[in-house]
Amino acid sequence: MAKNAFFFNELLDTIVERGRSLLDFSGPGHAGKLEELSHALLSDRGESSGVAIAQAILQGYRLLDDSGRQQFFRFLAEKFMPDPDLVASAAQAYVETPDTSRLDELTRATEAPRREFFRRLNMAPGGTAQIVAMREDLLRFAKGDKDLEAVDRDLVHLFGAWFNRGFLVLRRIDWATPATILEKIIQYEAVHEIRGWDDLKRRLEPEDRRCFGFFHPSLVDEPLIFVEVALTRDMPHSIQDVLDAEGGEPGKAPTTAVFYSISNCQPGLAGISFGNFLIKQVATDLAREVPSLRTFVTLSPVPGFARWLDAERAAGDDGVLLPAECEALACLDDAEWQFDKEQAEAVQEQLNRLCAHYLMAVKARNDRPRDPVARFHLGNGARLERINWLADISERGMAQAFGFMVNYLYDLKEIEVNHEAYANSGLIAAASAPTKAARTFKKARAVTPEPTH
Amino acid sequence: MAKNAFFFNELLDTIVERGRSLLDFSGPGHAGKLEELSHALLSDRGESSGVAIAQAILQGYRLLDDSGRQQFFRFLAEKFMPDPDLVASAAQAYVETPDTSRLDELTRATEAPRREFFRRLNMAPGGTAQIVAMREDLLRFAKGDKDLEAVDRDLVHLFGAWFNRGFLVLRRIDWATPATILEKIIQYEAVHEIRGWDDLKRRLEPEDRRCFGFFHPSLVDEPLIFVEVALTRDMPHSIQDVLDAEGGEPGKAPTTAVFYSISNCQPGLAGISFGNFLIKQVATDLAREVPSLRTFVTLSPVPGFARWLDAERAAGDDGVLLPAECEALACLDDAEWQFDKEQAEAVQEQLNRLCAHYLMAVKARNDRPRDPVARFHLGNGARLERINWLADISERGMAQAFGFMVNYLYDLKEIEVNHEAYANSGLIAAASAPTKAARTFKKARAVTPEPTH
Amino acid sequence: MAKNAFFFNELLDTIVERGRSLLDFSGPGHAGKLEELSHALLSDRGESSGVAIAQAILQGYRLLDDSGRQQFFRFLAEKFMPDPDLVASAAQAYVETPDTSRLDELTRATEAPRREFFRRLNMAPGGTAQIVAMREDLLRFAKGDKDLEAVDRDLVHLFGAWFNRGFLVLRRIDWATPATILEKIIQYEAVHEIRGWDDLKRRLEPEDRRCFGFFHPSLVDEPLIFVEVALTRDMPHSIQDVLDAEGGEPGKAPTTAVFYSISNCQPGLAGISFGNFLIKQVATDLAREVPSLRTFVTLSPVPGFARWLDAERAAGDDGVLLPAECEALACLDDAEWQFDKEQAEAVQEQLNRLCAHYLMAVKARNDRPRDPVARFHLGNGARLERINWLADISERGMAQAFGFMVNYLYDLKEIEVNHEAYANSGLIAAASAPTKAARTFKKARAVTPEPTH
Amino acid sequence: MAKNAFFFNELLDTIVERGRSLLDFSGPGHAGKLEELSHALLSDRGESSGVAIAQAILQGYRLLDDSGRQQFFRFLAEKFMPDPDLVASAAQAYVETPDTSRLDELTRATEAPRREFFRRLNMAPGGTAQIVAMREDLLRFAKGDKDLEAVDRDLVHLFGAWFNRGFLVLRRIDWATPATILEKIIQYEAVHEIRGWDDLKRRLEPEDRRCFGFFHPSLVDEPLIFVEVALTRDMPHSIQDVLDAEGGEPGKAPTTAVFYSISNCQPGLAGISFGNFLIKQVATDLAREVPSLRTFVTLSPVPGFARWLDAERAAGDDGVLLPAECEALACLDDAEWQFDKEQAEAVQEQLNRLCAHYLMAVKARNDRPRDPVARFHLGNGARLERINWLADISERGMAQAFGFMVNYLYDLKEIEVNHEAYANSGLIAAASAPTKAARTFKKARAVTPEPTH
Repeated sequence: MAKNAFFFNELLDTIVERGRSLLDFSGPGHAGKLEELSHALLSDRGESSGVAIAQAILQGYRLLDDSGRQQFFRFLAEKFMPDPDLVASAAQAYVETPDTSRLDELTRATEAPRREFFRRLNMAPGGTAQIVAMREDLLRFAKGDKDLEAVDRDLVHLFGAWFNRGFLVLRRIDWATPATILEKIIQYEAVHEIRGWDDLKRRLEPEDRRCFGFFHPSLVDEPLIFVEVALTRDMPHSIQDVLDAEGGEPGKAPTTAVFYSISNCQPGLAGISFGNFLIKQVATDLAREVPSLRTFVTLSPVPGFARWLDAERAAGDDGVLLPAECEALACLDDAEWQFDKEQAEAVQEQLNRLCAHYLMAVKARNDRPRDPVARFHLGNGARLERINWLADISERGMAQAFGFMVNYLYDLKEIEVNHEAYANSGLIAAASAPTKAARTFKKARAVTPEPTH
Repeated sequence: MAKNAFFFNELLDTIVERGRSLLDFSGPGHAGKLEELSHALLSDRGESSGVAIAQAILQGYRLLDDSGRQQFFRFLAEKFMPDPDLVASAAQAYVETPDTSRLDELTRATEAPRREFFRRLNMAPGGTAQIVAMREDLLRFAKGDKDLEAVDRDLVHLFGAWFNRGFLVLRRIDWATPATILEKIIQYEAVHEIRGWDDLKRRLEPEDRRCFGFFHPSLVDEPLIFVEVALTRDMPHSIQDVLDAEGGEPGKAPTTAVFYSISNCQPGLAGISFGNFLIKQVATDLAREVPSLRTFVTLSPVPGFARWLDAERAAGDDGVLLPAECEALACLDDAEWQFDKEQAEAVQEQLNRLCAHYLMAVKARNDRPRDPVARFHLGNGARLERINWLADISERGMAQAFGFMVNYLYDLKEIEVNHEAYANSGLIAAASAPTKAARTFKKARAVTPEPTH
Repeated sequence: MAKNAFFFNELLDTIVERGRSLLDFSGPGHAGKLEELSHALLSDRGESSGVAIAQAILQGYRLLDDSGRQQFFRFLAEKFMPDPDLVASAAQAYVETPDTSRLDELTRATEAPRREFFRRLNMAPGGTAQIVAMREDLLRFAKGDKDLEAVDRDLVHLFGAWFNRGFLVLRRIDWATPATILEKIIQYEAVHEIRGWDDLKRRLEPEDRRCFGFFHPSLVDEPLIFVEVALTRDMPHSIQDVLDAEGGEPGKAPTTAVFYSISNCQPGLAGISFGNFLIKQVATDLAREVPSLRTFVTLSPVPGFARWLDAERAAGDDGVLLPAECEALACLDDAEWQFDKEQAEAVQEQLNRLCAHYLMAVKARNDRPRDPVARFHLGNGARLERINWLADISERGMAQAFGFMVNYLYDLKEIEVNHEAYANSGLIAAASAPTKAARTFKKARAVTPEPTH
Repeated sequence: MAKNAFFFNELLDTIVERGRSLLDFSGPGHAGKLEELSHALLSDRGESSGVAIAQAILQGYRLLDDSGRQQFFRFLAEKFMPDPDLVASAAQAYVETPDTSRLDELTRATEAPRREFFRRLNMAPGGTAQIVAMREDLLRFAKGDKDLEAVDRDLVHLFGAWFNRGFLVLRRIDWATPATILEKIIQYEAVHEIRGWDDLKRRLEPEDRRCFGFFHPSLVDEPLIFVEVALTRDMPHSIQDVLDAEGGEPGKAPTTAVFYSISNCQPGLAGISFGNFLIKQVATDLAREVPSLRTFVTLSPVPGFARWLDAERAAGDDGVLLPAECEALACLDDAEWQFDKEQAEAVQEQLNRLCAHYLMAVKARNDRPRDPVARFHLGNGARLERINWLADISERGMAQAFGFMVNYLYDLKEIEVNHEAYANSGLIAAASAPTKAARTFKKARAVTPEPTH
């Protein structure tokens, strides 16, 4: 302890004298120093010199390699977890006398000191961005590690408070936006790659394009999520049509807002959901800005369709496909089958039914659609409006969904009802065409003795 | 439930159709509606239509009178508390098997649904400001009410995350600041009243005055706390000298930054501490902006001195004062005793010793100084530098402290050491003069058989 | 010249070494130095070190007293006028051969070097504001002085280019405007005094008040002119009603924008006209912002009425008044005659006719209305809509116009026609009531043998 | 006239009713309409409806093709020139009585109504940018056309007032600048092409690059001129080294600011000089921002060297070259001679002397250096510091200057003296090496009987 005291005086001299910037983390005792600093941050000292100590910790963390970082998270998991004895005795006390003050004590006892640790860490200038980056590391390490998963839960809990919808700022992104941000739009676009600045400029044309992002005041110039919108006169059938369109029809007011790309930007915020708010806010704002708009719809990928169908085809008799169907689909193994018009048309209807079935009837463990994009939009209260054939003929689009894309319709008046039915009973709102396609698929199977899956 | 469903469809029609603004809360079922909305906000519906529901709740709350509001907080206390059975069984399970997953379940069980309720409420535009205002109400109701105090603890917990130092923005306030903010500076100044716009302008003169405030990005144009600083060439003896000074000595660079007024602006954020950060940040920034500054010091009130001394005088033999002292102090009962120069000088030294004793030796239950301002600055690591006689001769200054004010010195190199000694052992850092004055007072009492208090 | 060269090297050393700030203008040779600098600014040196020299001149000018400044303008008048010989020979050459290149030479010869001098002076940081301030001085000196008037014409010519409408920026002034600007609004209000910050705040209430000003990018935080507008439901009869109104009628959209005060802010820009543009721009913008507005009207003073009427009354038989009228108006000499209701009513109609006559028929030398405010609005194409009795009962309002005020109507569709008729034929657009009143006044005189004026 | 009146009422109806936007200029009478509008703008109507009329004219102008635009300028030249009779009689009057008021009349008479026309045209929103664009057209038409040149002189005169240094705003351009502006930097870079956004980003790296531009408040997002600066530790020998450098030496403060590219952006502002101010302002600002800087120097092209040398080589005995020199230089006709190391070294010294001679001794008609870049920097007071061999080996660099580039040194203390010597006596400030090289070249010729050129 005496040593510690000396260490800290020395440290704080360093902090005060040398502009709070350069701490020597190069030596072998690096990890130990970080842990001492972390204890200090949580102690009384953290109250008076917290900003300096937090800065030092973040700086020290950045200098660590992956194994050092993993070790640091393990330290947080083990040393800054709730005190088991304290929890046990508070739990026992509550079981015996379940009153308000015992509950309060128990609540305090169960809150991991890590939470306060991260809150104090956030006092450092630029702290929020660095804690988000720390979680990006953590997510790599935590998979299947119960202790690190517990640390992650604490971060998720904090991020839930910090990145509350009420603190997010919606900003339009256009050609007058600083290049620092635009550069990130190019980099973060996760759905339909932006091929350089000219492509970006086209996607920001004020005439018939919009782009909006959520920002957090403490993450300067860093979008959290953004959406790209095309203003058109019809619900589009193909993403290539949207991306290659030259401009709106002059003199004709757009009627349809197409959300054709939504990208999350911060891997460290995985699991903190912004997309639902973003789409609804943007739809509301666009309806005001462009009064001619009547329809708000997505053009979305079906990321899991090919993987599922390939598995079914491989499963043979154990799968959902009839032998004749399997045979008919053999052509999918040809490279570029889609360019053989005759062949493509031969499988179109069958694939369409399969896609409808996949989207509406193939479920994950929690009885929600297995396709993550379907799960997202249907969970938001959107309606599965149309399944589009050869709608994304890029390599990626063919590989993940045999070219299929889906329009999900956001009808502000039905969102609530759809969401409720979905949330309570798992009911999926869908237009008649996809409903019928899925039903036809099902019926064809009904004659087989053992209905599968 | 059927009724509820109908109610909500109707409500959401209202929300969607009528611009999410006008809900009829005028009828007798008002409280019931608010409670239903609150349940809805926490349900699945809250996920899809949360912004609209949160807006409706805040609007409904604003229309309530005090008794309605109190009733609403009681509702939150009773209906949105942790489920006792769940807590009890999770506690029992943990006591039996204290592993990570049981701990996780227990942690979840003890977190009151109120916290999530307030987090979702914050999604409404302007929500943060309104939740802060709600707590202002709550503080009036909660005193001594264990259930409401539990609600308040949840709000304090949330505010701790939301108003984290890392999210606060320091802004200089000067004559180029929008009038909306300046008006609030006049209104919120709690220590030395600002007598109109001319007085304000003097306090913002760039030559020898500074004013800084902390702002939160979600509380637009609303300072959380602000500090007024005078740049001088000496540590000042009197607040009237500071307030009446006409301007710096031309051509002489200031050496001393005097923090002569710190005002918290948001009663709803009581207990969320910003002052410590503000002073240190401002000192750091000023040191950079005005390199000639060497000394950072406050000129602070002693708000509890007169109350304490009056009580001691009233206590007679049970008090700390010797009979001769009591007698000598009788003159304090004269109105305007301070203007009788002879009389004033007769008690000066005695009062000075008493003030030193009060500040350094009179403690509250937690063994910290009873004087709240002393507690604040000493807890920050400042040093009690000088006690100033007739330093605030305003009515208020005389009434609360017989005119005494104190300079607390912020020496950046000593802050950490002072704070640590204070936090660990209750040691108070003080210059030799006040230390000696307090010791003299104590010695005089040492000869009496029974040391008091 | 050698001496000069030395002087300039020394000067520029000073300029370069000492931060271009401190030149010693305290000695007796001050004026000489300024003149040397001025020559330097116009010379080749001005091209390479113009910014520094211009700064030095402006600084030197500021240190001069009035007589020094007057002397400096005389220097500009005499030394920086066009070269008479050059002009004469160029004039002669043109008379002989009036071709393009001779014209060009003549044009150059007649342009006073002063213009280039002021253009270069403007290179100094903050130069524009200081040149405007210099003209404020000049206007005091120039009256009746032909040479200084010539200098002033050059400044007017330059200001015409610099303060071109295309360079002015219209800004809304409201309670979120920096105090530096609001303070100037209080100070510059020339028509209806603003009695402190509370009064100002009332005049900026977003509900039913507006304030707009023109700014120039180089005059930071300095309005050139501003207008105060009340949004009402009727064309107002009284300025006191406007100033004292508590707020709009809740729930009723305003129909009328009342321009009740227009103030020029920069005496140094006298004669450079902004008001016409300001009113029309504000009317256009307000029509867009508040679609319920139908009527755009002023409530304007009649600054010359009392002076004119007093003169006519004094003129006796030589004046325009009939003896009976003179007698009836004798009551105007009573202090506070307006509070004697009976008396006031007795003269109301007569005064009304006189005011109409004054506004429409009493002309200045250029056959335009003698009243400057009438001249301004009628020249803008507005219509004299209504003359209001006891519309400004402030001391000033009574003193200058026996309480009369006038509504001038800006009907965007008629402005052009009105302006044209006024500009071409001096025709005044007026509503029927004032027209009739003026005609009645005239008729009464028609019976007298010699129509006056 | 009656027809006109009708036309204008109709026009103004159009202007007022149809949002001041769409005038039908498609018919055959287009030119006539523009001319009528132009007359109207200068008339009384221009005062009341000037903004609308100016907008209409600018719109009409934009719809014209080149021949229409040329015709319009001819209209301005002929109809809006000074009235010859008026000028002649005013000239005559002045010759007879050269007093102030006659001078004033003559000055007015010689000012072309075009100036007032353009001033009023500038009232239209966005007018300034469009008038600048009009001059871009005019410059194409005016060459050798005396009348149009007279129109151009009037525009130059106005632009001199409008784009006065005092109205320009210096802005740093970096990666946080809006893309609208950055895009123009790429487009306008005239010296060393920017190859896309990555190249641009490198040129804006805060570590060792700077970019600054002058902007005018009325030309939003439009730089007038910009300069690119590299912060280095040595005066650079080669532009390729500057452009390809990866970054500053870490931990070493830069000592040298290299102005390696200056580009004018607005062809319509040709002849209005900004570069001189820009370099000096940027040097001053950089000296403050980066105190380690000691040297401010350019790396500049020698655009006329190859053209001059080729002409001399072609001139044979009539040229400045000795026969042996001519022969030695024959290798320059080889493509890519510079890659033959031996050959290149063989001509290096000779070319170096030729370049020094070209820069310092080859003059244009006005006895200033024939090389425009040399003229610019020497005229600013810079010193010819070093001639660099193979300093720009790009195709362009080889073609225009056989790869030579020049460092011009801006020594703030010498600028004034250099400028003065240059302005008064044509003396060129140069370091000893180039001086010696030029002298050696001259001496070699001194023995020839007839020194040329």
